[in-house]
Amino acid sequence: MSEPLNDAELRRRIASLIVVRASGHAGDRQRRYPRWELPNQTLRRLLADGVGGVILLGGTATELHQRCRTLQRWADHPLLLCADVEEGVGQRFEGATWLVPPMALARLHQRDPARAVALAERYGRCTGRQARRCGLNWVLGPVADVNNNPANPVINVRAWGDTPATVIALTCAFQRGLQSTGVLGCAKHFPGHGDTAVDSHLQLPLLPHNRARLDAVELAPFRSLIAAGVDSVMTAHLQIPALDAERPATLSSATLTSLLRDELEFRGLVVTDALVMDAISQRWGAGEAARLAFAAGADLILMPGDADAAIAAIAAGLRAGSLPWQRLDQALDRRRQALARTQTFTADDAEDPEDLSDLELSEERELATTLVALSLEQRGPIAAQPLAAPGSGGINLIRVDGVLSSSVLRANAPALTLPEQAGFRSLLCHPLGLSPWRSEQASDAHLALERLGEGPVLVQLFLRGNPFRGERDRSEPWGAALQQLQREGRLAGLVVYGCPYTWERLSGQLDPAIPALYSPGQMDDAQALALAQLLSSDRTGTGTDRNDGFTD
Amino acid sequence: MSEPLNDAELRRRIASLIVVRASGHAGDRQRRYPRWELPNQTLRRLLADGVGGVILLGGTATELHQRCRTLQRWADHPLLLCADVEEGVGQRFEGATWLVPPMALARLHQRDPARAVALAERYGRCTGRQARRCGLNWVLGPVADVNNNPANPVINVRAWGDTPATVIALTCAFQRGLQSTGVLGCAKHFPGHGDTAVDSHLQLPLLPHNRARLDAVELAPFRSLIAAGVDSVMTAHLQIPALDAERPATLSSATLTSLLRDELEFRGLVVTDALVMDAISQRWGAGEAARLAFAAGADLILMPGDADAAIAAIAAGLRAGSLPWQRLDQALDRRRQALARTQTFTADDAEDPEDLSDLELSEERELATTLVALSLEQRGPIAAQPLAAPGSGGINLIRVDGVLSSSVLRANAPALTLPEQAGFRSLLCHPLGLSPWRSEQASDAHLALERLGEGPVLVQLFLRGNPFRGERDRSEPWGAALQQLQREGRLAGLVVYGCPYTWERLSGQLDPAIPALYSPGQMDDAQALALAQLLSSDRTGTGTDRNDGFTD
Repeated sequence: MSEPLNDAELRRRIASLIVVRASGHAGDRQRRYPRWELPNQTLRRLLADGVGGVILLGGTATELHQRCRTLQRWADHPLLLCADVEEGVGQRFEGATWLVPPMALARLHQRDPARAVALAERYGRCTGRQARRCGLNWVLGPVADVNNNPANPVINVRAWGDTPATVIALTCAFQRGLQSTGVLGCAKHFPGHGDTAVDSHLQLPLLPHNRARLDAVELAPFRSLIAAGVDSVMTAHLQIPALDAERPATLSSATLTSLLRDELEFRGLVVTDALVMDAISQRWGAGEAARLAFAAGADLILMPGDADAAIAAIAAGLRAGSLPWQRLDQALDRRRQALARTQTFTADDAEDPEDLSDLELSEERELATTLVALSLEQRGPIAAQPLAAPGSGGINLIRVDGVLSSSVLRANAPALTLPEQAGFRSLLCHPLGLSPWRSEQASDAHLALERLGEGPVLVQLFLRGNPFRGERDRSEPWGAALQQLQREGRLAGLVVYGCPYTWERLSGQLDPAIPALYSPGQMDDAQALALAQLLSSDRTGTGTDRNDGFTD
Repeated sequence: MSEPLNDAELRRRIASLIVVRASGHAGDRQRRYPRWELPNQTLRRLLADGVGGVILLGGTATELHQRCRTLQRWADHPLLLCADVEEGVGQRFEGATWLVPPMALARLHQRDPARAVALAERYGRCTGRQARRCGLNWVLGPVADVNNNPANPVINVRAWGDTPATVIALTCAFQRGLQSTGVLGCAKHFPGHGDTAVDSHLQLPLLPHNRARLDAVELAPFRSLIAAGVDSVMTAHLQIPALDAERPATLSSATLTSLLRDELEFRGLVVTDALVMDAISQRWGAGEAARLAFAAGADLILMPGDADAAIAAIAAGLRAGSLPWQRLDQALDRRRQALARTQTFTADDAEDPEDLSDLELSEERELATTLVALSLEQRGPIAAQPLAAPGSGGINLIRVDGVLSSSVLRANAPALTLPEQAGFRSLLCHPLGLSPWRSEQASDAHLALERLGEGPVLVQLFLRGNPFRGERDRSEPWGAALQQLQREGRLAGLVVYGCPYTWERLSGQLDPAIPALYSPGQMDDAQALALAQLLSSDRTGTGTDRNDGFTD
């Protein structure tokens, strides 16, 4: 049916299958990743040309909401508006609810499966409702990867478990909750990214398992989510010889068509992971990668290196006969059907739809704090008395991935305010700061204590396998540092926020007399609760400033 | 006329004269200064009770715009919505234009007075237009203080000069520009805060000058601005024995009524500076301070420690006869007249009034970069070759007031990206980081070079007298540090952003062979231009990321 299209109409239809990246901020100069986030002029032109989807990052909930309005106004057709809000909208957009990472529920699922499943459904509902309230109609979750490799640098706490049974139970519950809100979901990263030790943002990982193993582990959650009616599936940039000797899953017809469509009978939208990731872009050009992904069975092309080149390459393939026209019709049909399932937030739903001051419902706030409380773990004693008396000169040593524009450590974060109120002086360790290590080369590297100052040291580590970090985190010898502080009798306590494997490793070496806490979450809620316990304080940190100032 | 009012109506009228503080963010949990920024429930109740003004801080231009809509919706009467946007709306609200501090124009005024005056008028127009576009109707500027005391910890670069003639020429030009946009202005801090060496946020400063000197210096700009029709005057928390032996200016009838009203014939609104500042709040309670300020002649009460107490104290004073009813009528009249002069941004003025992606006009962008270029100063040679070859291991040492939620140093700030592209490794010195000083106590304290690493050191100092800092900045021996780096042959260059007095002091000690630059501005524009010159690069830093990552 599509063959007699003129070139402009053909490009327009293909364009509707492209998802480009935009900042959630209004102005070009506010972009945090200007290399990846299209400037407004280009964005506006592409949307006028028919580009059909935008993935957003950056800005607050209020800004996201306005941005979605603006993008939709720039297009004369309904857009797919999506974001990587795997942990609630607040993970990416301040002002919305940020929930503990999915892995926290997996740990709860071991102890209390029914409760974990009920919470996972609320998790999906909270994420979906707020996404819709902010203008999104497509949540890029749940992560359906079985994270059975503790060294996984990119999935880690984003996964809903390390066994197929847990991942199935929780992701299907999340999907039910999400679905009830009129927002699309996305099972990712097909056929399963849980057992990789390299970051596909940086290179192409290889999954050496045979088909039987893939069926038993990696594919199981996808089968269940497909049965549960998940709206879309995102492909993984993974080399899996058992499925395709030549091409990574994103570009593999054997994986996306023979396996996902024909065998698993998935009828929804297949979307690629971002094609600008090095695993793909190091080998294939922007147009070529898009054409191959589309030929392999992907309906939507996410973040091509060059949207115009992607459209042109797919158009050329169709015209030349190397791509069947049927592929275009199928993709357009599936997109239409998916959009028809979404519900738009209407003015009737709120006093003033533009005002997000009431974004978070009380039951969502309660969900967030319940999840933090249920996922907090402790070893050793919990101090009955404050660890340090005010003015006693203790040190509140905080390790973070970054301090500039940090989403985990805001200027009045509880991780700072609560220890400071208990007499500790805050000291941040971060990649742009002076090193706390005696020698960065020495194999027995440990803390240069003379640089820290006197007194007991409370150590707070914000560590979770974030993308793009490569091996950087592993070069910091926190295990040795904790041993050293223990030997010197100066370790007041430990809090780990994020990675459970790091927590297990570090806390296992601690003297049982040292109070230690773990939270999978890194947000204010997690900091406030962990420190209220550690410092035996009932301060919540939400009503206090770091100093007397009221302006900057 | 007001006497037969019932209590509720009396409280309501007084409430309209109160200006409370709110965050520009939508949600309570997003507040940066929760101790000072009212939670939404309280704010909404006070606005429903008739509170007539809000001062906003925090959030982006988009958030501010939504917030102003919401606040206006919560009140059933027209609000005065103001902010301390002395350097353009972008000084406080990202996404709007942030201009170099006024003092930069004062320095230009010495060389080219006509140009400086023309630019000051554009400065006012840019500030006013964007303020109105964002929903504000009152700009708390210009600062009319003559900053003739280089040790002034709180005015400094915020002033339009250090002589009355310059301040008069530039503030009147600013006011003309502002007035043309339908936004109210505010001359501050009456009767003149330029010659103080202590911060009134922390204690009450004393101005020992006699009346003749006050007339010649401090009062001169206020006379001119009053003649030019400035809409409001903000009082200073200053003890000035020549005017009032007993009370600080904010609470002094001799100052606000005899001098400002009767002698200087000011007919507009008199507003107090924030009553929560320690200079006032350490001695007077919230209700008492408000009542005294109102009795002295203030029409509007800014940031009382407790809005309800302020309203009750003024009501009680009126009922008891210690406050004349005439004071209420005058204040209400002046407020009505001021509001009548404001213009609201209407839907006709933009394609979509909610969308601020086009907030900054091209002539405003040009104004911002022109001001940065005109105010950049240099000493010593400008390197014809990059200071360090890529990978050569130089150090980009940056000193900032704070790194968390910093408005001057965003994650991809040019101060980081440009030196990094030229081979420097960035290293941040900030109050929460490990100290770069060998000993914080020693009088000859200097840099612990072994902690910094090898190679040439580019020093970038972000220093400007910010409020609430007290003596903290002076305890950092950057003069000695620069000498030390020079002696070791390791000083690659110096950039000072902010305070001209610090620049004069530090650059005066430099070997003429060391390239050194000064910008009064601290924003991205200033960083990009200074470093492009220092690194002899044409990179602007606005199109580049710090690393290859595209998510966090």
